Amino acid sequence: MNTPAMNAPADPAFASRCRASFARQKAMKLIGARLAVVDPGYVEIELPWLEELTQQKGYVHGGIVGMIADTACGYSAFSLMPADCSLVTVEYKVNILNPGRGGLVAKAQVVKPGRTLTVARAEVYADDGTHVATMLQTLMMLAGIPDTP
Amino acid sequence: MNTPAMNAPADPAFASRCRASFARQKAMKLIGARLAVVDPGYVEIELPWLEELTQQKGYVHGGIVGMIADTACGYSAFSLMPADCSLVTVEYKVNILNPGRGGLVAKAQVVKPGRTLTVARAEVYADDGTHVATMLQTLMMLAGIPDTP
Amino acid sequence: MNTPAMNAPADPAFASRCRASFARQKAMKLIGARLAVVDPGYVEIELPWLEELTQQKGYVHGGIVGMIADTACGYSAFSLMPADCSLVTVEYKVNILNPGRGGLVAKAQVVKPGRTLTVARAEVYADDGTHVATMLQTLMMLAGIPDTP
Amino acid sequence: MNTPAMNAPADPAFASRCRASFARQKAMKLIGARLAVVDPGYVEIELPWLEELTQQKGYVHGGIVGMIADTACGYSAFSLMPADCSLVTVEYKVNILNPGRGGLVAKAQVVKPGRTLTVARAEVYADDGTHVATMLQTLMMLAGIPDTP
Repeated sequence: MNTPAMNAPADPAFASRCRASFARQKAMKLIGARLAVVDPGYVEIELPWLEELTQQKGYVHGGIVGMIADTACGYSAFSLMPADCSLVTVEYKVNILNPGRGGLVAKAQVVKPGRTLTVARAEVYADDGTHVATMLQTLMMLAGIPDTP
Repeated sequence: MNTPAMNAPADPAFASRCRASFARQKAMKLIGARLAVVDPGYVEIELPWLEELTQQKGYVHGGIVGMIADTACGYSAFSLMPADCSLVTVEYKVNILNPGRGGLVAKAQVVKPGRTLTVARAEVYADDGTHVATMLQTLMMLAGIPDTP
Repeated sequence: MNTPAMNAPADPAFASRCRASFARQKAMKLIGARLAVVDPGYVEIELPWLEELTQQKGYVHGGIVGMIADTACGYSAFSLMPADCSLVTVEYKVNILNPGRGGLVAKAQVVKPGRTLTVARAEVYADDGTHVATMLQTLMMLAGIPDTP
Repeated sequence: MNTPAMNAPADPAFASRCRASFARQKAMKLIGARLAVVDPGYVEIELPWLEELTQQKGYVHGGIVGMIADTACGYSAFSLMPADCSLVTVEYKVNILNPGRGGLVAKAQVVKPGRTLTVARAEVYADDGTHVATMLQTLMMLAGIPDTP
């Protein structure tokens, strides 16, 4: 969907910058998520199975599915941004396609990079290949505002 | 948006049924969320502040905001359902309006109840009154399928 | 949802500016839509019944329902903007709640005004009071870019 | 995204059924849209440039973009359905990525077919290859209810 040229990262240290930002996300630590892949405009987040993440029927909570897709979309966009900016989630929409059983992976890619707004998409799959969810997300870059508290 | 007649619960024990279901959600326990109000077609979920729930800049993670809004929408719909059914989230869309600081509350109400599909909406506010997020969600009733593992 | 103070229009001539912009929308003329109400942060668009607007079963086409809700959200946001800017739709999500029969009205209001992004919501009703659709939309202001071709 | 097996149409006459249904959509005739491709789980709708379809700045109206994406998603789902059913749009979300100039094409495919709910996605492109919009849509099958007025 993107040509390589569209996804040239503005910051050569994009991967370490994404990883350092992800490491500051206490919510990702809480649920045990791991930033598995960081390419320009493409990110994978893995979520090993944990009973603590389930809803009332024993599947992974839909909100947890949304969390990893949301975060994967965010870092796919962040990977293309300049070093001195931060990013906020404007909105996202997620369709839950199948119950989430077992470990999950969220694979996100930038659909349209932009100076102000970026649109990204994520697919969430279970370990057994089931397509669990699909997300479409809008993000806004805050130029010159650091990605730290 | 709903007349009282639209929101007559099919199950007089709706509140205890919702509370029992919520109590089975290990993910809600993990993040410390509490089912504060259960009325017919209306639910509030409270989320006290916890540093473990934050993202890289110290705000409550947008995915956590989505989780409580998602769950509040779900139980607002579930409160109107017959006793022997369960409910799945079809999809939701959330706009993050302001950073989430401090404790949060998600207030959800049914927009349109239905035999198969229900549409619900949630607003998330911070303790200081800031409007943090707004969600629109679609849910599907599974008739005769119990809400247990 | 908004206090009056939040919705003070930046341009006292907001109503005539909105009406002039709407009059340039040939697509609104094509479907016969009319800008009925323009208040600060609130807009109503009326769509009289026309057989030309229907889908295969004789109801108003869901995309037409989306068009008037989209446009109503846009002008609710535009009403609060400075005179020298234009506005683009970033995204919208619409739930079709009931088939659209007869004339329709889309009632939109700003949920959160902003310097760059504004979030608005619309409800579409049929002449007989049926709730036909609900929309949540994100818009972006383009400062200093005129709202003309 | 779909394996061929997932997209086996239930009705061998799916293409003529889709074309007959599309031909009943007066709203598609009004805007000059054409059902260009009907494959199992995949549909293309073409929209030649018409000044009557524009908004205030001379681009194709975002609601018109939504209309053709909405309709393309619908028929991508309808192509996989049994002969004696009809389909309603539950909801859709569309991101407008670039202004729509010139003729447009909406390319839709089923993401997840289902007995009750189907999820589809559409991309809208301009004649010059610009990516104009991306849509994610949920549809519901009405078994045994004919697709006629």
